[in-house]
Amino acid sequence: MAPLPESVVTYARKKLLDLVSIPSVSAEGRGLEQAAQAVAEMLRELGLEASLHPTNGAPVVFAEGGGTGPTILFYNHYDVQPADPLEDWASDPFTLLEKDGNLYGRGTHDDKGELVARLAALLWVKQEHGQLPFRVKFVVEGEEETGSPNLPGYVESHRELLKSDAVLWEAGGTDAKGRPQAYCGLKGILAVELRTKTAGYDLHSSYGAVVQNPIYRLSLAIASLRDNQGKVLIKGFYDQVRALSKVEADALKTLPDESAELAKIFGVKGYMGGVQGESFYHKLLAEPCVNVNGFHSGYGGPGSKTVLPAEAYAKLDFRLVPDQEPAEVFRLLQEHLQREGFEDIELSYLEAGEQPSRSDLSHPWVKTALEALREVYQKDPVLYINMAGSGPMHPFTDVLKAPVVGFGVGYPGSKVHSPNEHIRVADFEQGIVAIKRALEMFAARF
Amino acid sequence: MAPLPESVVTYARKKLLDLVSIPSVSAEGRGLEQAAQAVAEMLRELGLEASLHPTNGAPVVFAEGGGTGPTILFYNHYDVQPADPLEDWASDPFTLLEKDGNLYGRGTHDDKGELVARLAALLWVKQEHGQLPFRVKFVVEGEEETGSPNLPGYVESHRELLKSDAVLWEAGGTDAKGRPQAYCGLKGILAVELRTKTAGYDLHSSYGAVVQNPIYRLSLAIASLRDNQGKVLIKGFYDQVRALSKVEADALKTLPDESAELAKIFGVKGYMGGVQGESFYHKLLAEPCVNVNGFHSGYGGPGSKTVLPAEAYAKLDFRLVPDQEPAEVFRLLQEHLQREGFEDIELSYLEAGEQPSRSDLSHPWVKTALEALREVYQKDPVLYINMAGSGPMHPFTDVLKAPVVGFGVGYPGSKVHSPNEHIRVADFEQGIVAIKRALEMFAARF
Repeated sequence: MAPLPESVVTYARKKLLDLVSIPSVSAEGRGLEQAAQAVAEMLRELGLEASLHPTNGAPVVFAEGGGTGPTILFYNHYDVQPADPLEDWASDPFTLLEKDGNLYGRGTHDDKGELVARLAALLWVKQEHGQLPFRVKFVVEGEEETGSPNLPGYVESHRELLKSDAVLWEAGGTDAKGRPQAYCGLKGILAVELRTKTAGYDLHSSYGAVVQNPIYRLSLAIASLRDNQGKVLIKGFYDQVRALSKVEADALKTLPDESAELAKIFGVKGYMGGVQGESFYHKLLAEPCVNVNGFHSGYGGPGSKTVLPAEAYAKLDFRLVPDQEPAEVFRLLQEHLQREGFEDIELSYLEAGEQPSRSDLSHPWVKTALEALREVYQKDPVLYINMAGSGPMHPFTDVLKAPVVGFGVGYPGSKVHSPNEHIRVADFEQGIVAIKRALEMFAARF
Repeated sequence: MAPLPESVVTYARKKLLDLVSIPSVSAEGRGLEQAAQAVAEMLRELGLEASLHPTNGAPVVFAEGGGTGPTILFYNHYDVQPADPLEDWASDPFTLLEKDGNLYGRGTHDDKGELVARLAALLWVKQEHGQLPFRVKFVVEGEEETGSPNLPGYVESHRELLKSDAVLWEAGGTDAKGRPQAYCGLKGILAVELRTKTAGYDLHSSYGAVVQNPIYRLSLAIASLRDNQGKVLIKGFYDQVRALSKVEADALKTLPDESAELAKIFGVKGYMGGVQGESFYHKLLAEPCVNVNGFHSGYGGPGSKTVLPAEAYAKLDFRLVPDQEPAEVFRLLQEHLQREGFEDIELSYLEAGEQPSRSDLSHPWVKTALEALREVYQKDPVLYINMAGSGPMHPFTDVLKAPVVGFGVGYPGSKVHSPNEHIRVADFEQGIVAIKRALEMFAARF
C-alpha cells in the first residue's frame, strides 16, 4: 500500500481550512449558499460535474463523474451545528487550528472533515490511476443538522439521477480501543409534544384541592407510555418491528462489550433491565424506545411558590427500528391517549420524523469496506447493524435500494456538536487511506 | 348605631398613607425595621404600650393596653409582597392613591389596610367611651409573606404575655354578592421538593434506550401520590384527619354555592370528582390534598432537541387539615417513596411548613362577630370552617388556646399580591364599623 502523498495531505488541509472558515450554520440560516458554492467548486476541481439543486430549504450540491465501473454515492452535508456556547471554545470555531496533533474547528468532524477526506481520497486515486476507475455521485445537503426536512423528497424526485451501486454514509470513526467502526443503518425518529391546559390561568395552589393539576395529568400520561425497564406500553407499538436476520443477530453477538466502560463515562450505576453485553446492544440498537427530552410547568425558582399552574408540556422522541413508520407511531400514540382517557392531552408533531433503515450486512460493498478497514487499521473492524441515533438514510436504502455503510475520521473524543470539536490528524490521514482502499477494492471486484 | 365620625375617617386615611409609603417587602428584606417602628408609634398614639420584640428575622411589634374587660388579640403583619411587575401598576405601588372610590397601593388590603381599620376602630371606641372597655393585645409580625418562619417560636415563648380571650385574624372581606365573610381556621401546609438524577450529565437521547429517564421517574413518582380525583394515595395520609364536628358539617352545608361561578372565572369545565355545592366546599376546605407547583427538566425551547436530561425536579405543596402535622406528612411521604421503589427520588423540605388550625365555631367570640357583621352589612354573613389557604394561625388556636375569627375590609377584586392592589373606600369604612361593633358587643357580653 503506497503511503499517503504529501500533495494529498496539503490538499486536504487547505480544503478543510476553506470549508471550516464558512459559518454554514443551518439552525441560524447563515453561510449555506456560500458553503454550497464552495463544495461545488471543490467537486469541479476534481473533474466532476457539480451543480446546486434548489429545495424548499438549503440547496443540495449534486455532482457526478469518473469512469465506468460501479457507481458509489457519497452522502455528506455542508451545514454545521451552532457554535454556542462560544465562551467554551479555546479557539475561534470558524478558524481551523492545528494543535497537539489535532485539527480544531466547528465541522472538523461533523461533517466537513469527512467530506474533505473523501475528496482527498479521490484526488489520490486520480493521481495514481490517471482517472477514477469507478463512477462517483455526491449528494451534499445543507440541512442535516436541522433534521434533513427536504432530503427524502429530493431523493424521491431524483431517484434515477441518484441510482448507485453503493452508498458511503456521512461519518464514522474509531472506538475507544482504536478499532475502526462501520455501521449499516440508523434508527428512525418521531419527535412530538404533549401539552395540557387545565385552567384559564395560574391559580393559587389552595384551589388544587378541587381544580385538576396539569403536571399530574402530564405525569400520568408519560407514566402510561412505558414501564420502568423502558418497554413501550402503547398498543401495537411493536407490531411493525421486523425480527433481526441471522446475519444481524450474529453481528450483534460479535460486538465488543463496552457497556460497563460507557456506564462509567455516563455516570450511571447500571442500565434499564440490567442489560450488558449482547442484551445491552440489542436494547440500544435493535429495540425502539420512547424518550422524554423535556418537561416544563409552573414554578422552578428558589424556595416554594404556592401556585397551581394552568399548563404543562413535555417534548418526547421515539427511536424507531425497521419497519416502524413515524406517522404510524404518531397514530398509535394518538389512539393510546384516547383509549387511556387523556383527551385533555394535546399531541402535536415537532418534526416530520425520519424512518429507520438498515442495509444488508452481507452485501459485497459492506464486506469490502470491512476488509479495507481491517487492512488499513490492522485491527478487526466493529460492525454495527445500525447506530442508536437517527438520520436521513432511509431514502437511500429504501428508495434507491442501495447498500449503505458508514465509516470515517472521528474518534469518541471528537466533541461533535460541542465546543472544541476536533479530529486527530492521524485519524484524518488514516481515514483518507481507508476510503481510497475501499473504493479501489470495490471497483476491482465489482 | 352612630355614623363613622369624620375624624376617624381622616385618621384612617392618614395612617394608611403613612404605612403604604414604607416599602416593607419581607422577600427583599427592606423597610421592615422602619415599618415596625411606625406601627409601634401608631399603637402608642392610641395609648397602648408598644415595643419591638426581636426574632431571628424581622421584629414582632407587640402592644398591650386598654381596660379590664376581655382581652382581644389582633394578629396582623406589616410586611407586604414585592411590587413586581412594576410596569403593570397604573400608579406608584408605595404611594396611596384614592381614585374612583378605591384606595390603591401595595398593602392597602394585605395587610396594612386591615391593620389601620383596627386602629381606627379603637380610636373611635376611645372617642365614644373615653377609654377602651376591654383589653387589647397586638402581634404585628414582619414575615407573614415569607411563611412566618419565626412566629410559632415567638408565640410559644411568649404564651403568658399573649394570653387572650379572643383573636381577630389578619384579614377578610365580602364575597362576590357583597355578603360579609368570616372564617375560623386555615389549612396547614408542607412544601417539598422531589429531585432525581439519573446520569452524570445530559446525554444524547439515543441512549434513552438503555439509560433511565429522570422525567419518567419523577412522573411515575408524582402519579403515585394521588388519583385522578385528587385523593392522596400515601399510606396513612388520612389517619390523622379529624372528622368534622356537627357544627362544622352544618356550617359547610349552609355555604352559598359559588362553585359554578368560580369555574367560569377560573376557566375550568368542572372540578375533580364532579363536586359542586356542599361536596365542593367539603373537598376544598375539609379535605387535605397534594399540589404540584412546578416540574422542570431538559429542553423547553422551540422545536425538538434530542437530549436525555440527567436531572429533573418538582415542587409540591400539601394542604393539611386538623390534626395532620407537616413533619408527620413528610415522614409518610418518605416512607411512600421508599415502599414504592423510588429510592432514587430525593425528598427535601422547601419550608418548615405550617400546621392546620380550626377554631370552635360555636364560641361566643365567633357568634358575636357574626352578629356584628349581620348588623353592619345588613346581610347574612358567610361562615367558613377554614379557608383553603394557609397561615400561622395554629400557634394561636392550639398554643394560646384562643378562639380565632377573621373578617375584614377586602373584596374578591382586591388584587392581593398583584399589581394595582386596592380596597374600596366603602369597604374600608364599613369594615371599621364592623370591628368596632364586634369589640363592643363582645366586651358587653363577656
